[in-house]
Amino acid sequence: MPTAASLSDRLLSGDRRALARAISLVENDDPAGWALVREVYPHTGKARVVGITGAPGAGKSTLVGAMTKLRREAGKSVGVLSIDPSSPFTHGAILGDRIRLTDHFLDPGVFIRSMANRGALGGLSEASLQAALLMDAAGRDDIYLETVGVGQAEVDIIDHADTVLLVLNPGGGDSIQALKAGIMEIPDVICINKADHPLTDTMVREIRGVLSLAPSGGWPVPIVRTEAMRGEGVAELLAKLDEHRAYIEGEGTLSERRRRNLRNEIMALAVARMRREMEARLADDAEFDRLVDEVAERRLDPASAAAQLLGDDPVDP
Amino acid sequence: MPTAASLSDRLLSGDRRALARAISLVENDDPAGWALVREVYPHTGKARVVGITGAPGAGKSTLVGAMTKLRREAGKSVGVLSIDPSSPFTHGAILGDRIRLTDHFLDPGVFIRSMANRGALGGLSEASLQAALLMDAAGRDDIYLETVGVGQAEVDIIDHADTVLLVLNPGGGDSIQALKAGIMEIPDVICINKADHPLTDTMVREIRGVLSLAPSGGWPVPIVRTEAMRGEGVAELLAKLDEHRAYIEGEGTLSERRRRNLRNEIMALAVARMRREMEARLADDAEFDRLVDEVAERRLDPASAAAQLLGDDPVDP
Repeated sequence: MPTAASLSDRLLSGDRRALARAISLVENDDPAGWALVREVYPHTGKARVVGITGAPGAGKSTLVGAMTKLRREAGKSVGVLSIDPSSPFTHGAILGDRIRLTDHFLDPGVFIRSMANRGALGGLSEASLQAALLMDAAGRDDIYLETVGVGQAEVDIIDHADTVLLVLNPGGGDSIQALKAGIMEIPDVICINKADHPLTDTMVREIRGVLSLAPSGGWPVPIVRTEAMRGEGVAELLAKLDEHRAYIEGEGTLSERRRRNLRNEIMALAVARMRREMEARLADDAEFDRLVDEVAERRLDPASAAAQLLGDDPVDP
Repeated sequence: MPTAASLSDRLLSGDRRALARAISLVENDDPAGWALVREVYPHTGKARVVGITGAPGAGKSTLVGAMTKLRREAGKSVGVLSIDPSSPFTHGAILGDRIRLTDHFLDPGVFIRSMANRGALGGLSEASLQAALLMDAAGRDDIYLETVGVGQAEVDIIDHADTVLLVLNPGGGDSIQALKAGIMEIPDVICINKADHPLTDTMVREIRGVLSLAPSGGWPVPIVRTEAMRGEGVAELLAKLDEHRAYIEGEGTLSERRRRNLRNEIMALAVARMRREMEARLADDAEFDRLVDEVAERRLDPASAAAQLLGDDPVDP
């Protein structure tokens, strides 16, 4: 079995098997994984990290496949992290969509990984950040973080990215509703995939309407039409992602954005750590069980119970 | 201005204005709101709490309106809490769908509230629980918690409910994808709304396929077809919700489910409280800024920074 030192050397040299093993260590919350991230962290920060979000079925994986193909043709190495939050019901990721990425499975310049485990650290968001850092350290030029859904947890994952791409479909209006309702923050680039659909023009107008309500100034969010299955519009999409990258680099906002993201990530990691410590402490705690009984019997309210748990003043929650 | 005591008396007598004011206090994180929940908490636990989830546009609000109409005809009072997670972009809820509930705005037996504010406590989930408790204390027979989206945060909100209803549309497959992918746990009742659609039968088959993969035994999840706009199938849906309620009461799983939910809620409240305390402490902390600088300059990794923040051993995150 390789030592952590040799694993980090192999990882830094771009070894795919070392990268796969390192991500597994992090996903399984193995202390060796965290030690490894610490060791290779000084070598991170070079990759371009693009977060890709949108409803299930929008064609994100097909699009990522098409983007990967073009980046490979341009001589770039690519890492893809597909994030599938799982529930106690399935205990794992369904690879379904990921099959569309199989074209690239044999290409050593492409590393594809699906993550589903919430991780003992308590957050898929935290584990996916660590995995992205490992891909970065392994020298991937481009990292695509692909995530399903439009909820808060998904937004947290996407916050690791330098550039956020939202993939929409004409007709399927869930994500645009999420944008309208403000569940989702305004992305940096919007892609309408399956743009051969007759409702595409309507959707473009609708999106422009939503964007016109956003605080103006700064980067004008481009709307790109693609048909990922046939590779159409993908080169233009990549050009827009590059433009956004050049824009945030030129404005100095890349380092600002990364600093803000890292700040949030440190806090999220600290909170996750506190939560884990608390959950471990309370798992078999008779005193806590008694407290829950009191709450269940309506003798003590949940917020006061939480305050008691922390030994705080119960009045101000 | 009424004192907290008189507000609680009015709330317990079912006064709608007192209930509205109490929820605002909680939403604005006013200590008086939390004190009020504490005071009235012994009077909660009587309402039937149904959580309603499904993608935007599935017709949840129309359905809730139709359900409310029938429950009113049966002489029951209803409280509806529509949860719209908001982002820094909009700073508030878009009431759009809620307009479909306007039929009931003048009926004193119906209390409708939309919540969007994440709340200083750090979680919409926590604030919505408190609001549901206030509705319960105000004597509402039925409480409908309606939430948009299929992410983790939405699941947390729905976990306050005794019975979870998932609303799907034939054709719009986002939620069924979420079920398949295990983002969403198996609900107690599934409703296919807009069931006049030609793809309804296909969808029923697809759902039965997903359900057949779930752990068997216990409650058999019914699939009800509705056309909420015309009120069709709504009586049958309510009957199924009643059946589920009777089932969990009969099996003794209602109190078990509530105890489990309350346990999770106490922990979530405690974590939210710790997070808030930490965020307040770090807002203008020069030492923390220095730590973030080190991480941004790639001299210290995020997990080690989090450990330093908590004064822990940096090796084991």
